[in-house]
Amino acid sequence: MTEPDKLRVNGHRLWNSIMSMAEIGPGEQGGCCRLALTDEDKRGRDLFIEWCTAIGCAIEIDDMGNIFARRAGRNNDLPPIVAGSHLDTQPHGGKFDGVYGVLAALEAVRTIHDANVETQAPVEIVVWTNEEGSRFAPAMIASGVYAGLFEKEYAWSRADSDGKTIGEELERIGYRGKHACGEHVIGALLEAHIEQGPILEANNKQIGVVQGGQGVRWYDLTMKGQDSHAGSTPMRGRQDALVACADMISRIQKLALDFAPHGVATVGEMSVRPNSRNTIPGEVFFTVDIRHPDGETLDKMAEQFSQTGKALANQHNVEIKTDEIWHNPPVEFDQQCIDAVASSAEELGYEHQPIVSGAGHDACQICRVAPTSMIFVPCADGLSHNEQESAKPADLEAGCNVLLQAMLKLAG
Amino acid sequence: MTEPDKLRVNGHRLWNSIMSMAEIGPGEQGGCCRLALTDEDKRGRDLFIEWCTAIGCAIEIDDMGNIFARRAGRNNDLPPIVAGSHLDTQPHGGKFDGVYGVLAALEAVRTIHDANVETQAPVEIVVWTNEEGSRFAPAMIASGVYAGLFEKEYAWSRADSDGKTIGEELERIGYRGKHACGEHVIGALLEAHIEQGPILEANNKQIGVVQGGQGVRWYDLTMKGQDSHAGSTPMRGRQDALVACADMISRIQKLALDFAPHGVATVGEMSVRPNSRNTIPGEVFFTVDIRHPDGETLDKMAEQFSQTGKALANQHNVEIKTDEIWHNPPVEFDQQCIDAVASSAEELGYEHQPIVSGAGHDACQICRVAPTSMIFVPCADGLSHNEQESAKPADLEAGCNVLLQAMLKLAG
Repeated sequence: MTEPDKLRVNGHRLWNSIMSMAEIGPGEQGGCCRLALTDEDKRGRDLFIEWCTAIGCAIEIDDMGNIFARRAGRNNDLPPIVAGSHLDTQPHGGKFDGVYGVLAALEAVRTIHDANVETQAPVEIVVWTNEEGSRFAPAMIASGVYAGLFEKEYAWSRADSDGKTIGEELERIGYRGKHACGEHVIGALLEAHIEQGPILEANNKQIGVVQGGQGVRWYDLTMKGQDSHAGSTPMRGRQDALVACADMISRIQKLALDFAPHGVATVGEMSVRPNSRNTIPGEVFFTVDIRHPDGETLDKMAEQFSQTGKALANQHNVEIKTDEIWHNPPVEFDQQCIDAVASSAEELGYEHQPIVSGAGHDACQICRVAPTSMIFVPCADGLSHNEQESAKPADLEAGCNVLLQAMLKLAG
Repeated sequence: MTEPDKLRVNGHRLWNSIMSMAEIGPGEQGGCCRLALTDEDKRGRDLFIEWCTAIGCAIEIDDMGNIFARRAGRNNDLPPIVAGSHLDTQPHGGKFDGVYGVLAALEAVRTIHDANVETQAPVEIVVWTNEEGSRFAPAMIASGVYAGLFEKEYAWSRADSDGKTIGEELERIGYRGKHACGEHVIGALLEAHIEQGPILEANNKQIGVVQGGQGVRWYDLTMKGQDSHAGSTPMRGRQDALVACADMISRIQKLALDFAPHGVATVGEMSVRPNSRNTIPGEVFFTVDIRHPDGETLDKMAEQFSQTGKALANQHNVEIKTDEIWHNPPVEFDQQCIDAVASSAEELGYEHQPIVSGAGHDACQICRVAPTSMIFVPCADGLSHNEQESAKPADLEAGCNVLLQAMLKLAG
């Protein structure tokens, strides 16, 4: 039997698994469209479970559809060391976001299995439901229920744009498990992920040792003016909700630039009514996403944003309605988990650096109830939520080796 | 027999006719939804024909579904004096747009009939098919075929969102007539219409003597940047197509204000891709509608608009694609027809003013092949293409009296 600290993952097998998963719900431009709880998501889950059972893992599914695949340890009374991420994607998503974390965990467990290594604590691979939040808002809802941040009934009732709910869709695809979400014990959670930002690539580092996640505030906004004929309504006196919204988008951009390089703000979603070429838009709905790693600074950005909205609505003679639909304060990861990642990267001889996650991740929810850390690897141009999202096989392999070694350290 | 210049319409009968027509395809909020060539449109047409035959008019329907209801004159070799508009509405349309023009013409002919007045030339009431363009684009298609602006085969082939064509739907509702569209001779055309703008109301005038229609240019624009993660992509280096588009909307607004009060510009339709809350938008499609009564000034606005687009795309590091999909130069109405309207308004003692039509109308198509003018009456707050569209009975009656007198002057 190979000494555990000499174990290395099979980078080709990891790569091939990622490419096989990407064939389910392929995008039009080389990426993926595998929205949460669709038929494609079901097929991705089924394939994952097939792979896990092939190496003897026991499957447990909770009533939020989260999947835990367990490889027993020597002492199964110990809480398991869990690694994983999510399999759902953005509508124009890439092959790596989430999927890498799940399949790196699978590759680590496959490597442990092949080498017949018996860990002290059990090791598990987890798949969290609806991380992206594209089909059902908010994002990271199932890890959020696990961490006690959302009520389960609230989560089940969240509907997509066709009115289908998470509860119904879990039932429909056969992934509403018997176990109550949150009751499955986690000893520690590790999540490997592409960085989705440009920092590691710019610094020529292969591994990011993630210290925590930045804070996020999400808003739904509606501006209401008055529909009117585009040809016969003079410019003066119009109540054009889209002109007001455009001004707001420019101000949000300026606000974020004032808080650069750490602050970011984005308007990602928008709909215009009546959306007719020759009618002045009477109503615009849009979303705002504001982030900063420092909680107090994030509050300051939120306050300025809210004041700007009121001032602009007044200026453009439209009504504004602002709902904060999500507030996730910054999180700090567990020092023992961070150390396990950092020392593994060091021992493996990979260039590494501490980093803060710009994106939200399931790990940022679970860290509130269990020791947690993350491992980042570079992705080309920092590009993510894009079909062109890309990562190098060598970087993915390096991150997977760090994950394997950190899991072994924590599992004993 | 009353002297023709002493004839006055029956305002109550006009109002009641408008209200009866509004019962066919009622809207949810007090307006109308009677889309072109639907069952509701057929019922509206049937009722109109019933009213016309009751006063002895002869009906002729052409192969675009345009209806001409003719009251014979003393000399039926003279080309007829025609008045009318359209009966189709926007999906959330009002009771008056188009309908007023048809039923004011009916009321004028009813008044002539009741008084046993015999005109020199025949007088006719016309209903044009699919003026709104809501169900089938482009708008004003049947008057456009009449004026030789569209081929009839092209018009017949235009499909709604379910793939049903104008040709099929004309056949289905029994309004594809035998006569070739465009062959029916028009001596002069008068169209009464609500203003759909706020000018008459603001100036406290009851009658707008329409001099012509402003020029229109329609554009489809696409801006392309790069989809990217909203949390982990720093502000610097983003290629946010929506931020670029927002800047463009503000500049278009400014451009129109620079050409106020006559110039107008509107972004009415927009779609964002991938339209996900936590993804920087990589692509935005939007439409631009620019209008001005002076052709050269409209060209200048178009030129500035095009330059602004290029400059902004460059500044925001996105690609821009601009397609001009329609260019309708300004039209000038016939002086004799304008004079007939102006002198009638003056003789009737109504406050009146010259005005240019901001919206497109069937009259703006027909004026290319026959002498034409229009009569505007105020509508509340200038509001149109809206179920709340409203007009005062006294104003509708005044416009109808002007129409009657102008028809009598032109018919002799």
